[in-house]
Amino acid sequence: MFEVKFLPEGKRVLVPEGTTLMSAAVKGEVDIASICGGKSLCGKCLVEVIEGEVSPITDVELKRIPKEKAEKGYRFACLAKVKGNVTIRVPDQSRVGRQRLVIMGKEPPVKIRSNVEKVYLELAPPTLHDTVADDIRLYSSLGSKGVLDVRLDYRIATKIATILRRADWKVTAVILGGKEVIGVEEGDTRKRSFGVAVDIGTTKLAVFIVDLMDGGIAFADGMMNPQIRFGEDVISRINYAAQGERELGEVQKAIVDGINELIEKGLTETGIERRELYEMVAVGNTAMHHLFVGVNTKSLGLAPYPAGLGRAYDIKARDLGISINASGNVHVLPNVAGFVGADAIADALACRLHEKEKLTLLMDVGTNTEVMLGGREGIWSCSTASGPAFEGAHIKNGMRAANGAVEKVRIIEDEVIYKTIDDEKARGICGSGIIDAIAEMLKCGALDTSGKLVEGHKGVRVTPMGKEFVLVPKEETASGKEDIVVSQDDVREIQKAKAAMFGGYMTLMRKSGHTTAELNEIIIAGAFGNYIDPASARVLGMIPEVPLDRISFTGNTAGSGARICLKSLDLRREAIEVADRMKYIELAAEPIFTEEYINAMYMPNSRLNMFPETAGSIKAPKVVRVYVSR
Amino acid sequence: MFEVKFLPEGKRVLVPEGTTLMSAAVKGEVDIASICGGKSLCGKCLVEVIEGEVSPITDVELKRIPKEKAEKGYRFACLAKVKGNVTIRVPDQSRVGRQRLVIMGKEPPVKIRSNVEKVYLELAPPTLHDTVADDIRLYSSLGSKGVLDVRLDYRIATKIATILRRADWKVTAVILGGKEVIGVEEGDTRKRSFGVAVDIGTTKLAVFIVDLMDGGIAFADGMMNPQIRFGEDVISRINYAAQGERELGEVQKAIVDGINELIEKGLTETGIERRELYEMVAVGNTAMHHLFVGVNTKSLGLAPYPAGLGRAYDIKARDLGISINASGNVHVLPNVAGFVGADAIADALACRLHEKEKLTLLMDVGTNTEVMLGGREGIWSCSTASGPAFEGAHIKNGMRAANGAVEKVRIIEDEVIYKTIDDEKARGICGSGIIDAIAEMLKCGALDTSGKLVEGHKGVRVTPMGKEFVLVPKEETASGKEDIVVSQDDVREIQKAKAAMFGGYMTLMRKSGHTTAELNEIIIAGAFGNYIDPASARVLGMIPEVPLDRISFTGNTAGSGARICLKSLDLRREAIEVADRMKYIELAAEPIFTEEYINAMYMPNSRLNMFPETAGSIKAPKVVRVYVSR
Repeated sequence: MFEVKFLPEGKRVLVPEGTTLMSAAVKGEVDIASICGGKSLCGKCLVEVIEGEVSPITDVELKRIPKEKAEKGYRFACLAKVKGNVTIRVPDQSRVGRQRLVIMGKEPPVKIRSNVEKVYLELAPPTLHDTVADDIRLYSSLGSKGVLDVRLDYRIATKIATILRRADWKVTAVILGGKEVIGVEEGDTRKRSFGVAVDIGTTKLAVFIVDLMDGGIAFADGMMNPQIRFGEDVISRINYAAQGERELGEVQKAIVDGINELIEKGLTETGIERRELYEMVAVGNTAMHHLFVGVNTKSLGLAPYPAGLGRAYDIKARDLGISINASGNVHVLPNVAGFVGADAIADALACRLHEKEKLTLLMDVGTNTEVMLGGREGIWSCSTASGPAFEGAHIKNGMRAANGAVEKVRIIEDEVIYKTIDDEKARGICGSGIIDAIAEMLKCGALDTSGKLVEGHKGVRVTPMGKEFVLVPKEETASGKEDIVVSQDDVREIQKAKAAMFGGYMTLMRKSGHTTAELNEIIIAGAFGNYIDPASARVLGMIPEVPLDRISFTGNTAGSGARICLKSLDLRREAIEVADRMKYIELAAEPIFTEEYINAMYMPNSRLNMFPETAGSIKAPKVVRVYVSR
Repeated sequence: MFEVKFLPEGKRVLVPEGTTLMSAAVKGEVDIASICGGKSLCGKCLVEVIEGEVSPITDVELKRIPKEKAEKGYRFACLAKVKGNVTIRVPDQSRVGRQRLVIMGKEPPVKIRSNVEKVYLELAPPTLHDTVADDIRLYSSLGSKGVLDVRLDYRIATKIATILRRADWKVTAVILGGKEVIGVEEGDTRKRSFGVAVDIGTTKLAVFIVDLMDGGIAFADGMMNPQIRFGEDVISRINYAAQGERELGEVQKAIVDGINELIEKGLTETGIERRELYEMVAVGNTAMHHLFVGVNTKSLGLAPYPAGLGRAYDIKARDLGISINASGNVHVLPNVAGFVGADAIADALACRLHEKEKLTLLMDVGTNTEVMLGGREGIWSCSTASGPAFEGAHIKNGMRAANGAVEKVRIIEDEVIYKTIDDEKARGICGSGIIDAIAEMLKCGALDTSGKLVEGHKGVRVTPMGKEFVLVPKEETASGKEDIVVSQDDVREIQKAKAAMFGGYMTLMRKSGHTTAELNEIIIAGAFGNYIDPASARVLGMIPEVPLDRISFTGNTAGSGARICLKSLDLRREAIEVADRMKYIELAAEPIFTEEYINAMYMPNSRLNMFPETAGSIKAPKVVRVYVSR
């Protein structure tokens, strides 16, 4: 066993010879970025070996790590293996970092009809002539209040003898779903009832404590999804968990621990007791749902990618290790398919998509973007691998929406104006920044519509690595060492991402027999969406060209959907109905998608007639070739 | 921390200073007898301190331990406290020891209608155009076979994705109670289905693996109830567990571990897989039931002694830590009162008491004897603290029914003839032996009907400790050192025990308005009963005087009742009906019981007219005084 010490935090961890630095970091819970899940693809896990012996540098690293860094001892944490006691420095750029977490979202008003019912009882104590068992005494008393056919959950059943006596036979029974007594509480507690809504995003985790009496949010907080150390994207985590029971358990434990940590924080801040959290509603995309519930995700990663679980489930909190009332219930919303999950259903519910009179497009933008098109007549859905580019990954100077990220860009007369998050010195570009930048580059002619940087344009320079557009000169950056640029490759990444989204949208349009002319409204959900400039998104052709006032950003409506389903059983029924009725199109099987994807690689699109306003506003050289399959 | 070493097994255990040797033995799982539960009453935990320092000998010990033994370093394990590293020898007499365990009992034929249903399914695998989720695919396939409205247990839900693919979509669904899928198995497994029946006796634990296809017993075995180290009798264990959550957990874990050990043995011997054990039915007296389920037993020890749980419950095996199929069900039968529990219900079901046309007495004889009187018209029940005397405890030379125990006695012309278990040299007297001995002593005139040993009778001798009757002279004993005798105190113990039983019986008779003349049949259940000579029991007045051919011994019918309820849901419904209809008399509240108890202290009874046959057959001086309360 050798000791690996991580600087600057000084965390130490003992590992056997041959362990990768990444595995050591996972073990020590040291924050190292990994987008590819340890496949030495993303190069985000660059660390500096300060002291001690690790395995020799690999060809992959020699090719990818700049020479002067390689000479200093920089390595990929996923490739360098421990050969003795070592000291490692994790540079700031290799950290997942503190993020701007958007956890709130638009929430429609709902009538409260929770799953929790409370009944106050005054029981007659037993005597030598009335030795009826405690449980039957309780059932009889409930029966006299009209509560029939209930049964005690095993855990609370073991405790009633003590509670009834301590409470002097005056108790409040907590009944779940009208059929299970999950709590027997001393005295009259009818006025207090709470639940927890959870949105498990691939990147972020949001936890809300909701007052089930009035529907108010007693506590809301978020954190990075702690599973990120098993890979930043869904596929990496699916693959990690698919290795075996142990790995699946690790990934599940990570998210459960994260949820419990936020609950703990909520209880401390609000003074609510754990026992008073009677129920939880959890949503997430299908993979997050499965990894939370503990479903082997192997088949989610293999065509035809069906969900393991599609129905809504009620699971005992204790079975999942969720630290609410041990007899409490965790309700997970239904999934539609392997990549349209409970979070999409939550989005649809919160945005009332299924009640829209006119054709509406709802997109929950993330690493995977769920695209839903429809209204009261029916909803078509698909999922597109928009990739993590919008979250700053696979982008040369990309970063998540954290302090110092360039989030807004305007190019006025070839002059770049930008704004960073919290107005700190620029450290990189986040999603909304790169969308703005590319839209502006198109508009000013630094890019052509095929996505090529235009040589000769003022902002474009040619380097041995290829062309790039300088966004922030190094003097203005936090490091002061390197310019922040948009590279040719970055543009390609964004093209792929937006083409996937638009391709998904168009596929649904064509499969459902609708046209963009009928489209009345666009709703962009997702934490990331909140900060996008809709005009820029339209210029890129991420979304179709509808009037800007018909484009709305609703934030984390997955969380809102979880909250309303926590508050109302009617909404849970709606969720099941929406899931049952939602049509799913698997894009992998659709030639239409390929066609639309290729056309959408152009900016805004090779079918320029679909974007008349944008077509008229951009200086970009127009290079278009319409592709039609078959 | 000091080390306590137990000889002869050589087991070592580390404990803090001040720990009693008994606690150290509990920790090290060393078998030391304790009837009183560590209250220094029973004196059964005598051990020899070979080496090292323990706390000074107490007054209690000086009074109770024979001088020559005290000088050798003999101590009560419950009083001597560790002061340094010590070596202890546990003499054979202080062992709980290997017992004759009767686990089988009479079982009525039942039509099998188990809670487990198996359905074979061949599913269509998903394709890119049919991406229905795995669970919904399974539900649909079940629906097509007419199985509707079922849902997957959480545990199996997490595994179906893997199982379905490994099984090439040909699986057998295991459905519990017609509503929960607890198993999805590869291929067609419809022919295999097993369950476990458990009888948790205060003294012994019996486990049966039952084939749910044909009702056969695949495996049957028993062991001493491992809870014995927390006290031999129910009250000691109730008190131990009542101390707190930790202690309750210890006592619960002991029984669960014991059951799991026997299951493990059964699986090894039969080749049945753990997964194939889909259900368990468990019975026990109310205290054993509660300690198994994990109910705080404090109120069972306090008047008016109501049961904590009276209804039948279904508990997930995983919640109890029972190692059958993790999604499987543990069904516990209902309890009637604090001291008439699920085992009594099982007895009644197995003996078909509730179907008897004529008045029938059913007694399950043990430390507590459950007395049930009635038939199809209704059943009256009570519980009497018959004490452990019938199991050899509180008897000078008493022992459990193990090798070398005197089990049968005849006195022919003042000559004692006896038989020991396995015909080994006599080590002591077990229950059936002491009943025989006292009956014979009455018949030969060595005892008068008030229970006094008759001075001057050939077999009776007077010692400084009181009168005693020599049963086995020391030359014929295993130790060769001391005569095996029946002391005056021993007779008193047996009088109290049988008076409790008969008093219970008479109370039920009088409360129900019946008379002994109406009594048609006596059924004696319980492991111990099997070996009693019914004629001797009648002479003692343990049971009323009905013709010997109407007295039957049914063995461990609690276990039989568990098995038939495992095999048939109809029997479970019957169990609930019997429990609901059974009238319970709390003897502590009954002056009638006091009256009948006092009368039954005489042998056979102070109301000699109730025992005409016995009255005519005994040479015992007849000393009687009829007691009538109020």
